[in-house]
Amino acid sequence: MPSVVAAASSDVIRLAVDCMGGDHGPAVTLPACQAFLAAHPRAELLLVGLPEALAQAAPNVMNWPRCQIVAASEVVTMDDTVEVALRRKRQSSMRIAISQLKGADGAAPLAHACVSAGNTGALMAVARYLLKTLDGIDRPAIATVMPNQTGGFTTVLDLGANVDCTAEHLLQFAVMGSALVSAVDGKEEPSVGLLNIGEEVIKGNETIKRAGELLREAAAAGHMNFYGNVEGNDIFKGTTDLVVCDGFVGNVALKASEGLATMIATFIKQEFGRNWLTMLAALVALPVLKRFKRRVDHRRFNGAALLGLRGLVFKSHGSADAFAFEQALNRAYDAARNRLLDRVHDRIVDTLQAMPAGPADDAGDKATPVAHAA
Amino acid sequence: MPSVVAAASSDVIRLAVDCMGGDHGPAVTLPACQAFLAAHPRAELLLVGLPEALAQAAPNVMNWPRCQIVAASEVVTMDDTVEVALRRKRQSSMRIAISQLKGADGAAPLAHACVSAGNTGALMAVARYLLKTLDGIDRPAIATVMPNQTGGFTTVLDLGANVDCTAEHLLQFAVMGSALVSAVDGKEEPSVGLLNIGEEVIKGNETIKRAGELLREAAAAGHMNFYGNVEGNDIFKGTTDLVVCDGFVGNVALKASEGLATMIATFIKQEFGRNWLTMLAALVALPVLKRFKRRVDHRRFNGAALLGLRGLVFKSHGSADAFAFEQALNRAYDAARNRLLDRVHDRIVDTLQAMPAGPADDAGDKATPVAHAA
Repeated sequence: MPSVVAAASSDVIRLAVDCMGGDHGPAVTLPACQAFLAAHPRAELLLVGLPEALAQAAPNVMNWPRCQIVAASEVVTMDDTVEVALRRKRQSSMRIAISQLKGADGAAPLAHACVSAGNTGALMAVARYLLKTLDGIDRPAIATVMPNQTGGFTTVLDLGANVDCTAEHLLQFAVMGSALVSAVDGKEEPSVGLLNIGEEVIKGNETIKRAGELLREAAAAGHMNFYGNVEGNDIFKGTTDLVVCDGFVGNVALKASEGLATMIATFIKQEFGRNWLTMLAALVALPVLKRFKRRVDHRRFNGAALLGLRGLVFKSHGSADAFAFEQALNRAYDAARNRLLDRVHDRIVDTLQAMPAGPADDAGDKATPVAHAA
Repeated sequence: MPSVVAAASSDVIRLAVDCMGGDHGPAVTLPACQAFLAAHPRAELLLVGLPEALAQAAPNVMNWPRCQIVAASEVVTMDDTVEVALRRKRQSSMRIAISQLKGADGAAPLAHACVSAGNTGALMAVARYLLKTLDGIDRPAIATVMPNQTGGFTTVLDLGANVDCTAEHLLQFAVMGSALVSAVDGKEEPSVGLLNIGEEVIKGNETIKRAGELLREAAAAGHMNFYGNVEGNDIFKGTTDLVVCDGFVGNVALKASEGLATMIATFIKQEFGRNWLTMLAALVALPVLKRFKRRVDHRRFNGAALLGLRGLVFKSHGSADAFAFEQALNRAYDAARNRLLDRVHDRIVDTLQAMPAGPADDAGDKATPVAHAA
């Protein structure tokens, strides 16, 4: 793995930040960077963006400590197609930020991880093009955390990078997700659930059943802590540390949950805002409502990992505010500090290369394709 | 459609109730039936169950007005396999209840709709075996409603009957779902959304893209009010009256939503129960919290429709209490009163038979298979 920066936990961690991405650009990303730097005395940032835009948002940005400004001349917008991001805007802040993870001509890369709030499709495509996938991984996946009833978090992947997955892809997601949870949450053998429509092994379509078999094989060989099938509600019960699914299903589950949370928040506001009596009740209940709000505040969980690439890329929500964007920086920092890339690599060697090769897709740009044994 | 009971809205409506189904059996179903009868003076019930179990739960059940007890000698449990329900327990309350929708030897059926809280897989299999699917429908689907932010409801199907759908199946779901919304909610041309991972027509897998084409064709021909792609959050926004999806995706979205709602309720309870100050706040906020709770009370939305069969079957949650089970009876009653079966039939004729035949699956037990044009 030539492109991997192995950072010991005491080393300086350097993040490349696409300061132009997201709905608000530098107005949000720069305050977040400032707060992040204050909280992480051993962190350094490469602030990638249009210099004039950065200076406008933070006039003294040139003088910030532990920062360097890396100039870009273009911005990938939220509506730009993958094509435009990949082929036309070669000097975009997104692309230049990602390229900081690649050392030129064998030299060490400049950054340990990259964070962008830019559009997901473009970010994944550019990252995949520039960084390539790790050996043994056909397709990168997007992983995020959701709060659960135990007070902890459930990591879910894939969330939309892949809309047609084979059983082998789901196994790869489980391997990469396990590495992520072990790196960021410190659980060495996180439990893995396979998202299905019932707990029994006979449930689901053929792909899911076959994925269940592969995961049980990996567990039997001691490579994975596979719990078995889980259902949609188990994400929020916290039945397993990790929930693995097809990107289509994961995306729908994530967005349905966001929609429901928004609806419930609206209903609570409407009921407390109904008349002066209910508003008085809201005033009395305010400290409780605030604590409740904090527990379900999705901004705290911002920062999805793009897994399976030869570099650590984190994606912030496009609509993130400075607090939310700072959480994405935190997650990228923790992942780099805990050597997520090495962990993914090690788990791939342990699990995937130890297992009989199955059919994989041919869209991969990996250096060593998995053998097609279909 | 020989097996369809055409009930004018002023006619008596007779429901067959599987009184043994669900986690609680007659202890829940009978009180629900009693409340339902009191609220519907023109309704009649066939109470199907083990006579001694019914008499134990309600000693004077024999004397209830507008009721008949139909004796069964077996019960399909929540853990019984489809095989057991279909082949072994031929005298089960579930099977006998469904068979009330079939007239013997050309005679009129005894009931207009059937309600059971028994296990979904068994109910669907027995219903499909006894009733058969409607002409033009390959696979029955399960539809339910979810509350949305507009204060109304979104009807979603399929919720788990079909884990591998073709584009043609999704079109059939849209046709059946439109009939359901028009019958139960009184909207003549309900808007239809196709659940996807983005709004653009290029999003999703091949099946979804093809389904989008079929739905646009149906809309162009004036047979459907197709809105376009919707995302998971649109279910709770209320963007469309109807959301159509694969049973795997629908099941995960439904269960994830249930899990999130449960988690949020737990968090609210925990925060208000933290100490005597917060408990005091809860006391003050109690009327507001009660109104809020009522708005998101999933019991109000109990009663999923099994669509595409030659008879109206409604499925209650297995864990339903009497209030929830009564809602399922209400939904079945409304569907029968508003001639849901005729409406599904009419829409199939209008939409599906007017469209060029596409590839369908061969698992259907329909009388007139859709031509295989793959």
